[in-house]
Amino acid sequence: MKQVIAARTDIGMGQGKLAAQVAHASLKAYEHTDDRAQRQWKQQGQKKVVVKASGERELYQIAEEAKAKGLPSGLVEDAGHTQLEPGTPTAVAVGPAADADVDEITGDLPLF
Amino acid sequence: MKQVIAARTDIGMGQGKLAAQVAHASLKAYEHTDDRAQRQWKQQGQKKVVVKASGERELYQIAEEAKAKGLPSGLVEDAGHTQLEPGTPTAVAVGPAADADVDEITGDLPLF
Repeated sequence: MKQVIAARTDIGMGQGKLAAQVAHASLKAYEHTDDRAQRQWKQQGQKKVVVKASGERELYQIAEEAKAKGLPSGLVEDAGHTQLEPGTPTAVAVGPAADADVDEITGDLPLF
Repeated sequence: MKQVIAARTDIGMGQGKLAAQVAHASLKAYEHTDDRAQRQWKQQGQKKVVVKASGERELYQIAEEAKAKGLPSGLVEDAGHTQLEPGTPTAVAVGPAADADVDEITGDLPLF
């Protein structure tokens, strides 16, 4: 079991901003996950992997593929209080789910 | 309401590693938060702020102060699969809780 969070590299987020957006996406997808998968993932150490997405379009594609495969996902749009325009999509999380299922969607993306 | 996550600056975490550790800490503290505070925080846009901690000792101090004040917290120790020694404390989250309560503990730390 793992959760992969893809974050955009093209909008110049600072390190702290990036971390906060990744955490938003992670929690959002987690809350769309059924209890059994939540438990399994936590028992296994709640593996999280952060990868690079090239832009907005890639984030939406990931979210759509996750939905099509029935995997939990969480797409985050920034509230725009700092750094970014309101509504800017910043990150998307897929899982927790089986490694192979998540890899089908995000397996080609480079590690952040 | 906000959640503040303090992450160490002295162990050379890469950007992706930092984001994953912050997300771990965020979820851990969230799960120690009562339902009412969880709901309030989410209704207000689940504000998360990432700040810098100078080292291990500061993380433990933050976790202890949160406990003493009755605020939810989550301290993360790295599993050590990559980059760090197993058991290395990396980040601690405080809240979600009232802004003023969180600021009493983390208000002096610089933004990441």
